[in-house]
Amino acid sequence: MTYRAPIADLRFLLEHVVDFGKLRSTELFSDVGEEVTDAILTEAGKLCEEVIAPVNRPGDKTPSTLENGRVRSAPGYAEAYRAIAEGGWVCVSAPADYGGMGLPVTLQTAINDMMSSACLSLQLNPLLTQGQIEALAAHASDEIKALYLPKLISGEWSGTMNLTEPVAGSDVGALTSKAEPNGDGTYAVTGQKIYITWGDADFVDNVCHLVLARLPDGKPGTKGISLFMVPRNLPDADGAPGVANSLKVVSLEHKLGIHGSPTCVMEFDGATGWLIGEEHGGMAAMFTMMNNARLGVGCQGIGIAEAATQKALAYALERKQGKVGGTGAIIEHADVRRMVTTMKAETFAVRAIALANAVAIDMGEATGEEDWKARAALLTPISKAHGTDIGHEMAQLGIQVHGGMGFIEETGAAQFARDVRVTQIYEGTNGIQAMDLVARKMMDGGAAAYALLDEVEAAAEAARETLPDLARPIFNAAENFREATEWLVEQEMEDRFAGCVAYLRAFARVLGAHYHLLAAMAEGGSGPRTGLARFFIKRILPEHEALIAQVREGAVGLYDLSVEDLQAV
Amino acid sequence: MTYRAPIADLRFLLEHVVDFGKLRSTELFSDVGEEVTDAILTEAGKLCEEVIAPVNRPGDKTPSTLENGRVRSAPGYAEAYRAIAEGGWVCVSAPADYGGMGLPVTLQTAINDMMSSACLSLQLNPLLTQGQIEALAAHASDEIKALYLPKLISGEWSGTMNLTEPVAGSDVGALTSKAEPNGDGTYAVTGQKIYITWGDADFVDNVCHLVLARLPDGKPGTKGISLFMVPRNLPDADGAPGVANSLKVVSLEHKLGIHGSPTCVMEFDGATGWLIGEEHGGMAAMFTMMNNARLGVGCQGIGIAEAATQKALAYALERKQGKVGGTGAIIEHADVRRMVTTMKAETFAVRAIALANAVAIDMGEATGEEDWKARAALLTPISKAHGTDIGHEMAQLGIQVHGGMGFIEETGAAQFARDVRVTQIYEGTNGIQAMDLVARKMMDGGAAAYALLDEVEAAAEAARETLPDLARPIFNAAENFREATEWLVEQEMEDRFAGCVAYLRAFARVLGAHYHLLAAMAEGGSGPRTGLARFFIKRILPEHEALIAQVREGAVGLYDLSVEDLQAV
Repeated sequence: MTYRAPIADLRFLLEHVVDFGKLRSTELFSDVGEEVTDAILTEAGKLCEEVIAPVNRPGDKTPSTLENGRVRSAPGYAEAYRAIAEGGWVCVSAPADYGGMGLPVTLQTAINDMMSSACLSLQLNPLLTQGQIEALAAHASDEIKALYLPKLISGEWSGTMNLTEPVAGSDVGALTSKAEPNGDGTYAVTGQKIYITWGDADFVDNVCHLVLARLPDGKPGTKGISLFMVPRNLPDADGAPGVANSLKVVSLEHKLGIHGSPTCVMEFDGATGWLIGEEHGGMAAMFTMMNNARLGVGCQGIGIAEAATQKALAYALERKQGKVGGTGAIIEHADVRRMVTTMKAETFAVRAIALANAVAIDMGEATGEEDWKARAALLTPISKAHGTDIGHEMAQLGIQVHGGMGFIEETGAAQFARDVRVTQIYEGTNGIQAMDLVARKMMDGGAAAYALLDEVEAAAEAARETLPDLARPIFNAAENFREATEWLVEQEMEDRFAGCVAYLRAFARVLGAHYHLLAAMAEGGSGPRTGLARFFIKRILPEHEALIAQVREGAVGLYDLSVEDLQAV
Repeated sequence: MTYRAPIADLRFLLEHVVDFGKLRSTELFSDVGEEVTDAILTEAGKLCEEVIAPVNRPGDKTPSTLENGRVRSAPGYAEAYRAIAEGGWVCVSAPADYGGMGLPVTLQTAINDMMSSACLSLQLNPLLTQGQIEALAAHASDEIKALYLPKLISGEWSGTMNLTEPVAGSDVGALTSKAEPNGDGTYAVTGQKIYITWGDADFVDNVCHLVLARLPDGKPGTKGISLFMVPRNLPDADGAPGVANSLKVVSLEHKLGIHGSPTCVMEFDGATGWLIGEEHGGMAAMFTMMNNARLGVGCQGIGIAEAATQKALAYALERKQGKVGGTGAIIEHADVRRMVTTMKAETFAVRAIALANAVAIDMGEATGEEDWKARAALLTPISKAHGTDIGHEMAQLGIQVHGGMGFIEETGAAQFARDVRVTQIYEGTNGIQAMDLVARKMMDGGAAAYALLDEVEAAAEAARETLPDLARPIFNAAENFREATEWLVEQEMEDRFAGCVAYLRAFARVLGAHYHLLAAMAEGGSGPRTGLARFFIKRILPEHEALIAQVREGAVGLYDLSVEDLQAV
């Protein structure tokens, strides 16, 4: 069983569920017609199926290694990466001024989804580069842009993010890396960074590190942090990679998954760096790139959900156990049918959320309207956390569908679960995403959430005649959730945080049901998409009530058990 | 952080929650006083902490291997196993007539729980032997018993179960292994068996395989299957291991977890075997041993939940990120507190279910009363499936508590998740357990379930004055669940199976809340156990409603999406 790019599904979602067509009414994206969209999806899909997917298992079995301070990538990665770069697929949304295609983030999102299905470990490399391109485009000087962007966009060079230190993980403000001015406009960057994805790569000519460090006059905490570009090789007068910078990969981590992706401990020892953005403005610059990166990580989860679903369905169609009618395969067993249909329904729902998120980003960019920007900001933590949660849950369901075979590594089902697990942790843990949702994203008093719920309810109203049994529960769920939101925004932070993970998931349940309903309506209220919508709305949506019950508990009783009690009982 | 045996928790559960004291009023277990119980738990706990836990990480890093057809076990396993055997800990519930201690299954259950926390891979070895001892005690001839039981009980020899074949997994009846009479009372057993746990071991003098195979006149399906004892070495006239039997380990599987436990492909090539039980009665004999084995596997999940919880709590108390009051550690963050408290509350709940299950087994044995036997049969699939589901979910939560460190193998948090994952699959997948619950275990029309729910409601009634906010939701949940059961037993099998996994989990939610309430009442309705009970009942119990909603959907709509639709959408 090999991966097949879900082109028809993506096309259906774009055209009928998340209103991608709206982008074409803007000046910025007026060129992105259906033909262009189709061509992009089809070509990218082909690359994922034929070139990238084949290196996924080898990369797991033969991880990348560190040899003489340099990373040697997994078998086949170099060739697959070159195909990505040569096809122009590193970052299709990059600005045209620097050699990019200037396509919508929505198409980038669809491509990231497919590429993650094909090989998460390798896809991490362009994903990081995408984030760096965005950060430089927004914050770097014209010189830096002119030097770095074309090389990053073409894939000749790759980019990394260097935030985490041993004592500064979720608490970025605790970092101790330093940057001293050299007097010539450059800085000497010193410090140790951990969990650096693709901290080195043997298939690019240069690796460009964006590093968070503190200037001598930087205050403690996040407000005293600045961002620096610290390339592995210093560009010479022609912009070609010149002498080695004072930095090195110290070691690689031994991880649960993504074995093909080298996770590096980096040592910067007075390495030459260039300031990006304002002095002490590193966090702001980092946040720009983080928003899209978070959507990108959400897509990693969705890509794995898709790949796991395809694999489980193929197995369920082939494996025979017990006497069952129809195909005679285990897909005819009710519980297997339930698992596989759940995988289908969940993947569809969260993919719709991520694409709607991307459309909001593009509309914000194209129109400059604050409402779209607020919508994008609201949806981002949901795409990231729910996308990766569903990615992991579906990978685990995939293992279960395989029975004993699922536990055997050769099957490949377990790799999906191992690989995707980190996506719930990096780029801000899913707990951090949920805190972001109930705190920062609710600073508008819930306005962005209510605007979205208005749309959910209007769609339910519109479907009330055609699909009353689906419209009603969605409308009621949206109302319940609206009331929970009204309650939430009145609470202290501690009470919001106590139930934030449940709140985020409840939101995703309501949205998932909404997009399923739109899909059902688009096929006229009967057919397979309606069947899938009914499955989701009847069997999965009801979960939202228990989640809201958790939300409404707030922090009451959460600290009744002291630390000593927790150790004792 | 090293494992600490939860002796106080086990003692509290036994004495105050699952009414272990009731056993002492029976003749069979009148000797098992509090002092004996304490001594057993304390000594077993010490062994787990000091001898078994230290080999857990090494066994993951240096898996067992196959060398010249023999298994070489992981570093330290042989020494740790010998300590288990020499202490008499292989099977404390084994009959005294053959050298066992004749202790209640309840104590065996507590020991299996602790030993699984310490090292799941190694513990699998005695767990399989326990099953074999039980099967032989119930079905073997006196000669076989006299020859094998003392060796198995002492741990000199170990036992395996050989059921699965490539085309016969959950569908055991499809197996093709054959047994031909040799004319001297023995049989020639031929066939290939897969997924054979500890199919060989280098720390015992003999490995005794119980093999399912078909006699020449055996009908197709499960009714034509017989059970055979096929030892690796044929016992000589003195009962010592003699010449090698015609069987071998062909290969070991490369698995997601339990690397220390060799999972073997076995080849039997006319191997000499002895019939156990009746001709064509293999399945009945197998079922005897399966019931306890299923409880044993449930305990593996519980043991991992415990170990993961201890590790996560220790990390949350030590790791500092962000400014928080109290200890200054991440345990003060609301979402981390929620995760760790969830781990505590879930582990307590499912451990109570398993111990109540064990008490029912012991009471059935001691009194011969059908009600106890029905209670034990009802609880077994719940203990197995929910114990292992919670084991896996808590191990995953444990990874999340560790953040980035959770994804690094050296931490050990990921190993718990990898190791426990198979427990949801083997010994009957959790889907099979749920089917067993709604089909076979409801052949009484729900009588055993109603009897248990009566107790739940009576306890809630009794707590109504002391803890009204906890008693009320439990009473209501029990009533909801009773109605769902009344509905369920009226349905066709297909409709029961469609929601069986949800039904099993809903049952576990009601029971978990019930045992938490008993614990809270036992400490007088205030204190840490009451806090933990409140956490479970307010935040986790509400899940049962969404589960019941799923149950009541039955198979409606489940097949609306044809196999072609599933491939298309």
